[in-house]
Amino acid sequence: MSTYHAPLTDIRFALHDVLQVEPLFASLGFEDAGRETLDAVLDECARLCETVLAPLNRIGDEVGVSFDKATGAVTTPTGFKDAYDQFVEGGWTGISAPVEFGGMGLPHGIGICLEEMIDAANLAWSNFPLLSHGAVNALHHHGEDWQKDVFLKPLIAGTWTGTMCLTEPQCGTDLGLLKTRAEPQADGSYAITGTKIFITAGEHDLTDNIIHLVLARLPDAPEGSRGISLFIVPKMQVGRDGSVGTRNAVRCGAVEHKMGIHGSATCVMNFDGAQGYLIGHPHKGLMAMFTMMNTARLGVGIQGLGLATRAYENALRYARERLQSRALSGAKLPSKPADPILVQPDVRRMLLTCKALTEGGRLLAYHAGSLVDSAAHAQDPLARKQADDLLGFLTPIVKGCLTEWGNECTYHALQCYGGHGYIAEHGMEQLARDARITTLYEGTTGIQALDLMGRKTMQLQGAGLRVFLGMIETFCTTHAEDVALAEFVVPLRAKAAEWQQLTRSIAERAAADPEEIGAAAHDYLFFSGYVALAYWWARSVAVAEASARPETFKAGKRETARFYFTRILPRTLGHAAAIASGPASLLSIPDDALDS
Amino acid sequence: MSTYHAPLTDIRFALHDVLQVEPLFASLGFEDAGRETLDAVLDECARLCETVLAPLNRIGDEVGVSFDKATGAVTTPTGFKDAYDQFVEGGWTGISAPVEFGGMGLPHGIGICLEEMIDAANLAWSNFPLLSHGAVNALHHHGEDWQKDVFLKPLIAGTWTGTMCLTEPQCGTDLGLLKTRAEPQADGSYAITGTKIFITAGEHDLTDNIIHLVLARLPDAPEGSRGISLFIVPKMQVGRDGSVGTRNAVRCGAVEHKMGIHGSATCVMNFDGAQGYLIGHPHKGLMAMFTMMNTARLGVGIQGLGLATRAYENALRYARERLQSRALSGAKLPSKPADPILVQPDVRRMLLTCKALTEGGRLLAYHAGSLVDSAAHAQDPLARKQADDLLGFLTPIVKGCLTEWGNECTYHALQCYGGHGYIAEHGMEQLARDARITTLYEGTTGIQALDLMGRKTMQLQGAGLRVFLGMIETFCTTHAEDVALAEFVVPLRAKAAEWQQLTRSIAERAAADPEEIGAAAHDYLFFSGYVALAYWWARSVAVAEASARPETFKAGKRETARFYFTRILPRTLGHAAAIASGPASLLSIPDDALDS
Repeated sequence: MSTYHAPLTDIRFALHDVLQVEPLFASLGFEDAGRETLDAVLDECARLCETVLAPLNRIGDEVGVSFDKATGAVTTPTGFKDAYDQFVEGGWTGISAPVEFGGMGLPHGIGICLEEMIDAANLAWSNFPLLSHGAVNALHHHGEDWQKDVFLKPLIAGTWTGTMCLTEPQCGTDLGLLKTRAEPQADGSYAITGTKIFITAGEHDLTDNIIHLVLARLPDAPEGSRGISLFIVPKMQVGRDGSVGTRNAVRCGAVEHKMGIHGSATCVMNFDGAQGYLIGHPHKGLMAMFTMMNTARLGVGIQGLGLATRAYENALRYARERLQSRALSGAKLPSKPADPILVQPDVRRMLLTCKALTEGGRLLAYHAGSLVDSAAHAQDPLARKQADDLLGFLTPIVKGCLTEWGNECTYHALQCYGGHGYIAEHGMEQLARDARITTLYEGTTGIQALDLMGRKTMQLQGAGLRVFLGMIETFCTTHAEDVALAEFVVPLRAKAAEWQQLTRSIAERAAADPEEIGAAAHDYLFFSGYVALAYWWARSVAVAEASARPETFKAGKRETARFYFTRILPRTLGHAAAIASGPASLLSIPDDALDS
Repeated sequence: MSTYHAPLTDIRFALHDVLQVEPLFASLGFEDAGRETLDAVLDECARLCETVLAPLNRIGDEVGVSFDKATGAVTTPTGFKDAYDQFVEGGWTGISAPVEFGGMGLPHGIGICLEEMIDAANLAWSNFPLLSHGAVNALHHHGEDWQKDVFLKPLIAGTWTGTMCLTEPQCGTDLGLLKTRAEPQADGSYAITGTKIFITAGEHDLTDNIIHLVLARLPDAPEGSRGISLFIVPKMQVGRDGSVGTRNAVRCGAVEHKMGIHGSATCVMNFDGAQGYLIGHPHKGLMAMFTMMNTARLGVGIQGLGLATRAYENALRYARERLQSRALSGAKLPSKPADPILVQPDVRRMLLTCKALTEGGRLLAYHAGSLVDSAAHAQDPLARKQADDLLGFLTPIVKGCLTEWGNECTYHALQCYGGHGYIAEHGMEQLARDARITTLYEGTTGIQALDLMGRKTMQLQGAGLRVFLGMIETFCTTHAEDVALAEFVVPLRAKAAEWQQLTRSIAERAAADPEEIGAAAHDYLFFSGYVALAYWWARSVAVAEASARPETFKAGKRETARFYFTRILPRTLGHAAAIASGPASLLSIPDDALDS
């Protein structure tokens, strides 16, 4: 079985040393988010993840959720409910929720660290509380006062959970195609009818009520995505006074059999005239949904990170323990029958790839998490706008790159085990299967790439990119005379300039041919991700060297950064070449010439 | 459920148009391998794969093999035995086996095409007959006359199957660590005692007998890999006269629970003084085993190819059918509610990657398959040696690259389905799980890379590479004046020169530091694979353009080649940069600095 020990050393390095969140949070008005509090929260969450959630990871995979067709009931794997109860008792469901509704009001920038640990410990389980965040956000930003009063407290307390009901059989990416209907009723409520699929935590036995946020069309709705409204549809009817009534006409029709996250209930939900309340304005549901979706996308990026860290921990231990063959330069442990496979350069290549992508990815994600707080609470309006621009720009990078890297790292980690990686009992193949969902839900990688390239770069004229390039420039200027950092600062500055130039040239070509955007998007996403990580790695070395951390820690950062700059960053060469080839290489082939 | 239609058009293009196997096979003395015969064999095998094997693929995954702990018996999924019986009746088990022992004596170069279809149709099932090939090869090359007489006929007829028993709990890659013992008996046989793991088809209900080829140590064996001998250990005892006796002391102790190929029996085999016969010379078992292993490695490369072709077929169909969103340059099907996702450049990028890697990979693999025949049967001794050198050089490339590309293509194909790809009923996730074994068994990708870099390039002084570079040079010279091919010929010639230069520089550095070999191996493997594919793509275009094939076919080859040269071949830039960084970027980090 795979183990999990929260990488608290690196989490703290990222939070405190590099991002310096204590003064940041203080400047944003978070009075109770001092270092001592944050560290205590991290420790306590790590304990819960390591001792309660992680041990349930394998049974969740083996047993999965079970579905009773006769009643529509879903039973979670043994132990899931008990763990959920402990989670609720500890107040974890409301950790970064508003205090006025019972939350702890801690910054999102700390909530994201907790998510990393929870996802790594048990991704399938994490999906039950996760979706409530989105519902809380949407209600908090768009709900009427009575809706906030009635629904927010139990969602934040965790006694109810939430869902996001978007997808239908004929529409996933393209929500404009959705068919679910909402008929106004005499009492001001709506009758919701339709079928939703892929509803995470759509039905389960962890709480008494489940609050579905459902996209549907009003009778007078315009066609397409401009005619979609958002509704609150509780499993057990809830009155405007908060009273819980009888069972609503919404029911789980099936649970999907999936490649992984077997312990997560992925439901077909049938709404058959179910009572619902409109949230926000008619036909403006998509905008409210995007409020939920952006945080959810950061959250899924973190899922990729979490799984990668757990895979790396186990592969590193295995590589130290497994004795097989000798180093090519001569035996390293002559007294043993063979050397540990850790001496093999190719095994180190796989492990260092994991270390470079996870530790660098952690900074990328945590920084984005802290921008959620800055965008909401920075005193200076310009600072708020810059944080918001940058957050919008980074969100598809965090989601797109960290989930793909999560797949890559779980792949490498499994590979380090050789044939043993393929066997269920080691747990590595579960991590790989679980990771595979992350590039699909909450918008595929292709959708993230289009969001980054089309909306966040072209439409918004690179506002977010400019902020990030400014950060890189400041860093490079500050360390321009530092000889020890030159091996990082010089290529980083060059890559940043190339990034800017590349963006400009795509924009110019896209003005003549809009297909340029789609043709460049994927490679632009990864080019961006790798340059962003180069920045965080360079900064990590600078911060580590200037710190009082042990020499081993400093060497770990320095040598991993060297590995990153010499062996990972060159991937940008291939991406730049692909971008330069434009749309012709993708679109010229006739559709009927694609068959083999 | 995923479908399978054998890509016979491209298979024939590869075999007849590009590789021109008819005159080749004739020159090698295969009298009955004319085009008509070969095409009939391809058609008939395709029919069997599409109608018998492919429909069993999903049930094999869902049900898996079952194991009776009390008796040690293994039951294959429903339908597997019936399909096996049809396979045996059709004579498919002996298709390229020697005629004198009941085989059909067709070239290996055609057998490899059949393997592709069988693997694509049902990888788990294919493993039952597959391993017999290795046993047949080892017996044919190293067995005594009575061993050939007794064992070859039933193995070739398929009434018995074979296994390769190498791995033990403490030894996989490093066979020098193996512990299984062989005690000489008074009757000239040996008593074999030990535990073997990961034994494919180690126990099953398809045939009455199973012939294990087992690596073990004689009492006087030197330590390490120089003290390993090979033994024949039948499940049911077999006398020197061919008589079948009682049950031998070998028994399946467990069946592994795996990520995929659930229908394949991966067994723990316990030998408890089982009767065995020495095959070949004492202490020379490893050499005999390598005879089996090289063909098995080509076979596993083909598994990666087969799964990729099936994944591509399904993703292409889905991309044509799934309506979602509009093309960025305006609606392509304005009468429909949305455009098929095939119009999206990013979906085409994923599909074209599959097409480029599978059709190019097919030529790489089929060419290697035909070299098995040339190396054995070419009349000119120099031609035999060149074929053998090139085959040795290409074998790790076929195994290493085609299995990794098989994983990449099944990944892309699943991704084309969006969230639906994660759901079992579409069958895409099974293809991805099944593909994952191919980079692990018969030597991991890292082992292939070391074989290519260390043994096939350094020790043999690049003999195989020189032959391949000669083929490229001949092609480029022949087409030097062809303006229409210049876009391929010019960069191909440049990449070939870079390949040669890269090899030389690694060799020079390795003379000073042997760790250079391990540090460069992975990236050298893929650099080599991508340049090799560039050659096959350039040649495919040249051959297609000169042929009487329809314009659509020619456009398919030309545009896919353009895609390959502009969007895939640039991956070599990153590999070259990684190689240039040498071992320091992998070895400098202290082991205890690796933790996060």
